[in-house]
Amino acid sequence: MATNASDPWSSWNVGKSGNWDNGNAVDSWATKPESAAGQRNSASNNWETAAAFGHPQAYQGPAAADDDDWDDDWDDPKSASPSYLGYKETEASEAGGVQRGNSRAAAMKLPLNKFPGFAKPGMEQYLLAKQLAKPKEKIPIIIGDYGPMWVYPTSTFDCVVADPKKGSKMYGLKSYIEYQLTCTNTNRSVNHRYKHFDWLYERLLVKFGLAIPIPSLPDKQVTGRFEEEFIKMRMERLQAWMTRMCRHPVVSESEVFQQFLSFRDEKEWKTGKRKAEKDETVGVLIFSTMEPEAPDLDMVEIEQKCDAVGRFTKAMDDGVKELLTVGQEHWKRCTGPLPKEYQKIGKALQSLALVFSTSGYQGESDLNGAITEAGKTYEEIASLVAEQPKKDLHFLMETNHEYKGFLGCFPDIIGAHKGAIERVKESDKLVATSKITPQDKQNMVKRVSTMAYALQAEMNHFHSNRIYDYNSVIRLYLEQQAQFYETIAQKLRQALSRFPVM
Amino acid sequence: MATNASDPWSSWNVGKSGNWDNGNAVDSWATKPESAAGQRNSASNNWETAAAFGHPQAYQGPAAADDDDWDDDWDDPKSASPSYLGYKETEASEAGGVQRGNSRAAAMKLPLNKFPGFAKPGMEQYLLAKQLAKPKEKIPIIIGDYGPMWVYPTSTFDCVVADPKKGSKMYGLKSYIEYQLTCTNTNRSVNHRYKHFDWLYERLLVKFGLAIPIPSLPDKQVTGRFEEEFIKMRMERLQAWMTRMCRHPVVSESEVFQQFLSFRDEKEWKTGKRKAEKDETVGVLIFSTMEPEAPDLDMVEIEQKCDAVGRFTKAMDDGVKELLTVGQEHWKRCTGPLPKEYQKIGKALQSLALVFSTSGYQGESDLNGAITEAGKTYEEIASLVAEQPKKDLHFLMETNHEYKGFLGCFPDIIGAHKGAIERVKESDKLVATSKITPQDKQNMVKRVSTMAYALQAEMNHFHSNRIYDYNSVIRLYLEQQAQFYETIAQKLRQALSRFPVM
Repeated sequence: MATNASDPWSSWNVGKSGNWDNGNAVDSWATKPESAAGQRNSASNNWETAAAFGHPQAYQGPAAADDDDWDDDWDDPKSASPSYLGYKETEASEAGGVQRGNSRAAAMKLPLNKFPGFAKPGMEQYLLAKQLAKPKEKIPIIIGDYGPMWVYPTSTFDCVVADPKKGSKMYGLKSYIEYQLTCTNTNRSVNHRYKHFDWLYERLLVKFGLAIPIPSLPDKQVTGRFEEEFIKMRMERLQAWMTRMCRHPVVSESEVFQQFLSFRDEKEWKTGKRKAEKDETVGVLIFSTMEPEAPDLDMVEIEQKCDAVGRFTKAMDDGVKELLTVGQEHWKRCTGPLPKEYQKIGKALQSLALVFSTSGYQGESDLNGAITEAGKTYEEIASLVAEQPKKDLHFLMETNHEYKGFLGCFPDIIGAHKGAIERVKESDKLVATSKITPQDKQNMVKRVSTMAYALQAEMNHFHSNRIYDYNSVIRLYLEQQAQFYETIAQKLRQALSRFPVM
Repeated sequence: MATNASDPWSSWNVGKSGNWDNGNAVDSWATKPESAAGQRNSASNNWETAAAFGHPQAYQGPAAADDDDWDDDWDDPKSASPSYLGYKETEASEAGGVQRGNSRAAAMKLPLNKFPGFAKPGMEQYLLAKQLAKPKEKIPIIIGDYGPMWVYPTSTFDCVVADPKKGSKMYGLKSYIEYQLTCTNTNRSVNHRYKHFDWLYERLLVKFGLAIPIPSLPDKQVTGRFEEEFIKMRMERLQAWMTRMCRHPVVSESEVFQQFLSFRDEKEWKTGKRKAEKDETVGVLIFSTMEPEAPDLDMVEIEQKCDAVGRFTKAMDDGVKELLTVGQEHWKRCTGPLPKEYQKIGKALQSLALVFSTSGYQGESDLNGAITEAGKTYEEIASLVAEQPKKDLHFLMETNHEYKGFLGCFPDIIGAHKGAIERVKESDKLVATSKITPQDKQNMVKRVSTMAYALQAEMNHFHSNRIYDYNSVIRLYLEQQAQFYETIAQKLRQALSRFPVM
């Protein structure tokens, strides 16, 4: 896209709005939809180039379409993603991310379909409108002890995802899993399939995605979707995702989210669905619903804060991925070679005791019994080692996985902010050439300031959750690890006590 | 070797004496010197075919002869073996074993050099001599609570191997390490180089090797012989070997062994050395020094006992090797990938804390401090894991290594007994054809009976040591392992206690 001097916005989408170290995050978002889109699931690609990922179609085998387990969880059956359970198949997960990306791009484009870069039309409308349409919804931003913050509802609620049931339609030709969602405040339940969660995710992404990180749902999966372990894992992740959404003061109070949890019948659900899909307060326009109770910020401060958020989220993304990589490696070792080795030690000790018992020498049966028990203890330790990651590493991984999801949303968020800032920077020229009025520029500054308040409010929300989550999960990890080692030590002492003292 | 009916001994050396499952243990000893010879160090090849091992020369690089560290630890510089430290290089060790083998074969052949199979000449002399020469030494066998046993000296002693010192000769052109040996009973010291130990080993092997398992010395080594760790390891193993010899009632009381520990000057050492080398009571003739205070055993019982020993030692050899293989694998993991992984976990946690500290959010320094400490704890755990094998697995491995050495001697021992038994079985024919007298046959039975008593005495010694050794070393292992896991748990609890309660 060549810069055209007569059109001050022409350079808009080619990356000027992104000021990343590697420079191509936002750029690639606009020009490489496959790359940026990968963020939806793997939440990693936005920070990187797309080079490492193949074409989505590459992952689709002929088995997918013939699979009996197939249902219409997908609108587009071609975007089927490969099996992914737990942490054992990162690559599959990343690949899944690439595929899912197309549908994210599609989701973001829905209300903005005239433009190659989503940010442009909403941004012009938001920054340059003489008068913003009075929004029906209002999202207040107040100044609290830690700076700008969302207003937290007086009563919070969670949503329990439970009771996965197999349903079917088309005379049993298509089957699916349905989950029961129960709000803790109303105690009322609704049922939803994965595809409904996916719909909700896309609505939230379209509506809030430039102000609030909306982490991706757990991956789709073609084969093994009805296996118990997969269902359990998916439910656990849907639960975590719903809890995140419920915990967010803006998302949880939104009409689309409330409606998702409280419709009373199929008709109400369909009506609400259609309404949400027609919502025009999406993309950058979400900022038009926000009114910070504070004076406008100056542009230098706005830009500094935005850069700081960019740096922090990028650095945390790296840190989280490092931990995930290390954790994955450790998971593999703990569930694979390590317990096998303990098992072998156990077997070797037992074999030896068996040989010893054939010596014909008197008075060694105590020793041989003790060696046999020591061998069995090592077999028990093998099981303990293999089972332990589910008790501790699993949660550390899940939390980091969730945060990877959050962090993967920030390039878009920062991109929108940077884009707005750039526009303001260029606005003096536009005023000088009378393309916009000084009042227009005043409006722009005010609106960018609103965006900055929103970013700070969201970051304060993010940080307080992050601190709580990491404190909890590392505590849990250390506690479980300590217990694990204590259990092993106990077992060894017990085995030791059986040896005769000579 | 074709069976010749006119020579009742002709089938002697081709394996009839060995009744092993795989049939070729003793056979290969006689016809494949490289294979059986491997036993000297690796103590494994006697039980197996030599197919897995290459020609000794294959391991000899040109570096050996040019090595500045070279000294005359070897009589034949071509038998240089590759570097071997610890358990990390089994193959090298096994290879070393093959090379050393040549010198064992040489040692065994010294007094028997007219015959292709060592057992034959001594065996004829021992079984068929009208009157055995009155031996100067006497090795009594008594019947104790557990059956036949050696007579244990009233005072035992150990020999402390210490103070390795670099010496040199030929104006510094050749250098070597000299160890100080101090007897715990006399508190007198002598100095010996490795080559002197090797000389002693060969004398003991030639003299007692068909009655008593004489385990091989620690491997020779060309490069790195002056490195601290190697010297420490070799000294530790020489110590263990000397302790084994001191603990043996027959070996420790022998003239050659006593002389090795108590010569007063170079002249006395050389005289004793020459005398030992001229000793003719070697090989099967060692049994001529033994007089069991018990009635002759019948041939069925003799054969059964011999078979039982063969089965037991073969099975234990398998068991010990299994444990060594597993232990080696575990050693590698504990000193390689596992601590690296804990280190990575530690680093990842610290990186994350570092990122968190840049958030600008207030009041999270406690958490970040705690995560940093948790990260450091995992780095400490990495060191603990890497160092632990030296504290426990090492001893388990050393003990099994020693026993592998013992067990590798049994094919020769069993072979000699089986050979003698076969001769007695064939003796009726010889009596019938008047090739020997009935009195000759009586003598044969008596002498084979003596051998059987000796075997039982040795096995009782072996078993009582085995029970003590395995009890001690597995206790030590379990105790150290329990302490190790307790230490880790403690460190984790300490790290946990630093996390703020939210």
